[in-house]
Amino acid sequence: MTNQSKITIEPGKQEILISREFDAPRELVFKAFIDPELVVKWLGPREYTMTVETLEPESGGSWRFINTDATGNEFGFHGVFHEISAPKRIIRTFEFEGLPEKGHVALETAKFEVLPGNRTKVSFQSLFQSVADRDGMAASDMESGIYDSHERLDELLAKRATSN
Amino acid sequence: MTNQSKITIEPGKQEILISREFDAPRELVFKAFIDPELVVKWLGPREYTMTVETLEPESGGSWRFINTDATGNEFGFHGVFHEISAPKRIIRTFEFEGLPEKGHVALETAKFEVLPGNRTKVSFQSLFQSVADRDGMAASDMESGIYDSHERLDELLAKRATSN
Repeated sequence: MTNQSKITIEPGKQEILISREFDAPRELVFKAFIDPELVVKWLGPREYTMTVETLEPESGGSWRFINTDATGNEFGFHGVFHEISAPKRIIRTFEFEGLPEKGHVALETAKFEVLPGNRTKVSFQSLFQSVADRDGMAASDMESGIYDSHERLDELLAKRATSN
Repeated sequence: MTNQSKITIEPGKQEILISREFDAPRELVFKAFIDPELVVKWLGPREYTMTVETLEPESGGSWRFINTDATGNEFGFHGVFHEISAPKRIIRTFEFEGLPEKGHVALETAKFEVLPGNRTKVSFQSLFQSVADRDGMAASDMESGIYDSHERLDELLAKRATSN
């Protein structure tokens, strides 16, 4: 049975909730979120190229990723890590640089939970300054990007598991 | 007429909104939020002592403040600055270290707007990971702390204005 990505976007709320189980141990799943060499292999839509410009994986560190589509258009994202508590929690800010106005920022919390059978559940919350900001993100191509990312992460984790 | 602090806590939402006008120019009001020497003179309840342990006033910087009550109890707060755009916007994370569990973090956005007559409006949003977290903060002694802080800031700004 394939693991399913669950995306919850409740009307009128300022958040998007995403949860997903992975067939890999927590340490490895966590590492895939903060190791630049792994991040570029799964984060973002399959047809895009991800570049990690900055990734300081510690509380107080900064991050900036650039996603490039097939025709060379670049989409930048950046923020700061409020907390990185390996292997269980990451809390960071997130700003998409392609919006018409600066200062529309989300607070993202990712929690990594151990499941029986060496599996892992990731629960992710993205919290927006307004319902409008949240709805704008939800109306973008976000969902297919999430499904793609999680499938790519499945593949990456399977490869890492066999290489160990 | 005295300036009034407006605090909005709408049922079921994940945010607290605070707005306040000040009889001082925007540059000075903004400075009072990021200059350690000024912060300790107004932030927090009047009977507490504020200590700035860390304040790196730039995007990506960190901050940590400690508020000490009359009997010596210390209350720590810390976070990271996602954005500091002088003199108009500050976006940062906020965590109160006295909670039973780590990882309950708020995203705070402060906007500074020029008003006629060399006055300034500050609009502040505190955004919580859950309604429960928001309600917990609202149920604390937050409101009197805000009124105290704003009155103390009024006094500080008046002094700075006459000393210029």
